[in-house]
Amino acid sequence: MTKKDALFSDSWMSSWMRTINASEAYREAGKKWKDAIVLRFDDGLNADGKKHTGFFLDLENGSCKQLRYAGEADLQSAPYILTAPYHIWEKLIRDNKDPLFMIMSGVIRVEKGSMLTLGLQRNAAKALLSAAAEAVAKPDTPYSAEASQAQDPSKTGLSHRKTEKSDGRSSYSTTSRGLDFESIPMQLFQKAKQLGVWNPADIDFSKDRAQWVTFTDTEKDLIFRLTAMFMGGEEAVTLDLLPLIQTLAREGRIEEELFLTSFLWEEAKHTEFFALFLRDVIGKPFDMEHYHGPAYRRLFHGELETALQRLHKDDSPKAQLFASLTYNMIVEGTLAETGYEAYHRMLTEQDMLPGLREGIGLLKRDESRHIAFGLYLIDRLLRENPELRDAFETEAGRLAGLVIDVVDEIFAPYQTMPFKLEKAWFVDFALNQFKKRMKKLFDA
Amino acid sequence: MTKKDALFSDSWMSSWMRTINASEAYREAGKKWKDAIVLRFDDGLNADGKKHTGFFLDLENGSCKQLRYAGEADLQSAPYILTAPYHIWEKLIRDNKDPLFMIMSGVIRVEKGSMLTLGLQRNAAKALLSAAAEAVAKPDTPYSAEASQAQDPSKTGLSHRKTEKSDGRSSYSTTSRGLDFESIPMQLFQKAKQLGVWNPADIDFSKDRAQWVTFTDTEKDLIFRLTAMFMGGEEAVTLDLLPLIQTLAREGRIEEELFLTSFLWEEAKHTEFFALFLRDVIGKPFDMEHYHGPAYRRLFHGELETALQRLHKDDSPKAQLFASLTYNMIVEGTLAETGYEAYHRMLTEQDMLPGLREGIGLLKRDESRHIAFGLYLIDRLLRENPELRDAFETEAGRLAGLVIDVVDEIFAPYQTMPFKLEKAWFVDFALNQFKKRMKKLFDA
Ligand SMILES: [Fe+2]
Ligand SMILES: [Fe+2]
Ligand SMILES: [Fe+2]
Ligand SMILES: [Fe+2]
Repeated sequence: MTKKDALFSDSWMSSWMRTINASEAYREAGKKWKDAIVLRFDDGLNADGKKHTGFFLDLENGSCKQLRYAGEADLQSAPYILTAPYHIWEKLIRDNKDPLFMIMSGVIRVEKGSMLTLGLQRNAAKALLSAAAEAVAKPDTPYSAEASQAQDPSKTGLSHRKTEKSDGRSSYSTTSRGLDFESIPMQLFQKAKQLGVWNPADIDFSKDRAQWVTFTDTEKDLIFRLTAMFMGGEEAVTLDLLPLIQTLAREGRIEEELFLTSFLWEEAKHTEFFALFLRDVIGKPFDMEHYHGPAYRRLFHGELETALQRLHKDDSPKAQLFASLTYNMIVEGTLAETGYEAYHRMLTEQDMLPGLREGIGLLKRDESRHIAFGLYLIDRLLRENPELRDAFETEAGRLAGLVIDVVDEIFAPYQTMPFKLEKAWFVDFALNQFKKRMKKLFDA
Repeated sequence: MTKKDALFSDSWMSSWMRTINASEAYREAGKKWKDAIVLRFDDGLNADGKKHTGFFLDLENGSCKQLRYAGEADLQSAPYILTAPYHIWEKLIRDNKDPLFMIMSGVIRVEKGSMLTLGLQRNAAKALLSAAAEAVAKPDTPYSAEASQAQDPSKTGLSHRKTEKSDGRSSYSTTSRGLDFESIPMQLFQKAKQLGVWNPADIDFSKDRAQWVTFTDTEKDLIFRLTAMFMGGEEAVTLDLLPLIQTLAREGRIEEELFLTSFLWEEAKHTEFFALFLRDVIGKPFDMEHYHGPAYRRLFHGELETALQRLHKDDSPKAQLFASLTYNMIVEGTLAETGYEAYHRMLTEQDMLPGLREGIGLLKRDESRHIAFGLYLIDRLLRENPELRDAFETEAGRLAGLVIDVVDEIFAPYQTMPFKLEKAWFVDFALNQFKKRMKKLFDA
């Protein structure tokens, strides 16, 4: 950079004014701006051996009438004064910083004038600064090249061109058609707001903690196993519900999405509930992954995750149907519901772990809404696509088999079952729940 | 089909037994089954001119020792009895139905024997039935071809092979490392469970309704405009948060996901809140889309949707940073927060619409947690990727400009503003909030 071009020098100032008036960008961007503005230096400006207040720019509809060092009188007359320390002005020009960001973040202060107007004139400001940078350095210096590139939004890293959006929205359901408060998902949403707001952190685990130390190793092992299964299961459903919400949201089913936000939030609290039980009763979390046997992993890491995450690539009715079948009907409606019912019964009959029992009672109530939603969704999908019925039955049978494998896996490690947990009861209950739901779906 | 092959005939029965004993699939699948089983017909079986109870199969470790019509004595001796009407047995064999599904859905009843064992032996059952189907019809008939195809899981419509999963989970955070209750997202989650559980449906709009009819057309127009903007905005954030939750969940940030489930649920309730206001005060929803001006559409349909939905294709730190900037810092932290604050002040000063006011007060409290999360997330991303700071600033400035355009668009249609809403106050407040947050981010 030659002396002639030194930033803020007299000669640079003339060069800046010429550049502004030669700039097509400024002529366009600045065409509505017709006021004088002072760019003031907090600490005074040392340029060409003298101290100055700042710059005075007189702008009028896309051209610059005057550009000179500002005097005291200008501070009175100019409708706009922007103030900042020297290094900020330098940075703004040299490093192609965004002037509105600088103003909004308070680095440059608006001493006089309307912030709103300045905001609306941001493109004029950018063109002015771009001209100022050009007046310092030749176009081949790196920051200038970057500056001119940044002018063109299509060249910035994250462009926001409409063409990138394949299925962009153009309206909102609420503001165009309104919500359907009578729909089943909205009715479930109303229930969720009343019944699903319990806070796991409010549950008192002090009696559980006292009782814990009295258990035998085998008893502890069973509770660890069930905790590991339920906790992993709740985390899995918290993770795997997302693609289904996404799919239904994309289809504009706002009522279904609203309910599913409560559903998701409840799963998150269920996950937290078991983590709190571990923290407050056992004392600390530990690696419980080995309690997840092959059948459990096949169902949760295999079937559930695959059926739900698949929706990102394939959101066909069949994929949605199988996703809801796996999630709502098999994992929630057959395995989890049975597991929670058995666990709750066991805790009640043995009169033990009252905190855990309370939480599981509340959790069961949430699950019943989730399963109700699943039934609604499967019913809707089967009505819309009756040709999928056979495939649905076959898949339901296949998955129900995996549930039986998981149940078998729970009981396998124990010679005699702690707390009198009964395998036959487990299987009967699961069978009955499954039967009841299939009846609802197919007898309607 | 020849007479010789007639389903359930004596000759078919022999053919079935031969097919079983020639079946590699049954030899493998049935190797743990060693009990006799009766397949009973509810209504008796008419075959070869006689009435029979059903079939008696004596199975032993992968082979079939006997297969004949069952007698009364078999009902006593066989450890397993499955019962169903004639047409069900026929359907099961001819249409390749899933036997476990039929049993679990109650169509076939387990009269005797352990449901659990039957479930574990489901592959043996399938191989048996498949052999039964083969004994009826030649392999070139359609249902048989379908049947043998369905045997091979890799050929069914939705296969669940592991290879399809690119980023499958192999463990859960809760069961391996436990939740970090001290983290900022978990602290925000605790607050959300206390403060974010208000129910929009509990708000009493009766006074609002009475007051509504006293407003002038211009006053109503402003309230419609603000309602349309807020309602569309809440719906937009309910839709557009999903990809961010998905992205953070996929990265295994379970604490962040847990908090975001409360965040999402709150946005859903905010959407519902304005829909309830419309329903209960105005009387019914109507098409309000024309209240969304070009700047509003540019920000919500353009920037917000693009920045967030982009995460499905590009979840780089830069894309995440820009998503959170657009969503939390600009839409929530600058536009919505200012809008709600102005609206709440206006309603309070004019002492009007107490239901609307109450809801907006509660909603503002939720939003403050959302913005706090955004600050946490942006801070984390900028610490992890300090090279993104400059791009962040530039993008923040650009987007802040769009907020100013939206504010301008709210005030433009009115000669004098109803309810003394002040543009200057609006801009000042927005500026201050933005400034405060940037200071937090960059002075730390
Ligand atoms: Fe759950
Ligand atoms: Fe659930
Ligand atoms: Fe909101
Ligand atoms: Fe929000």
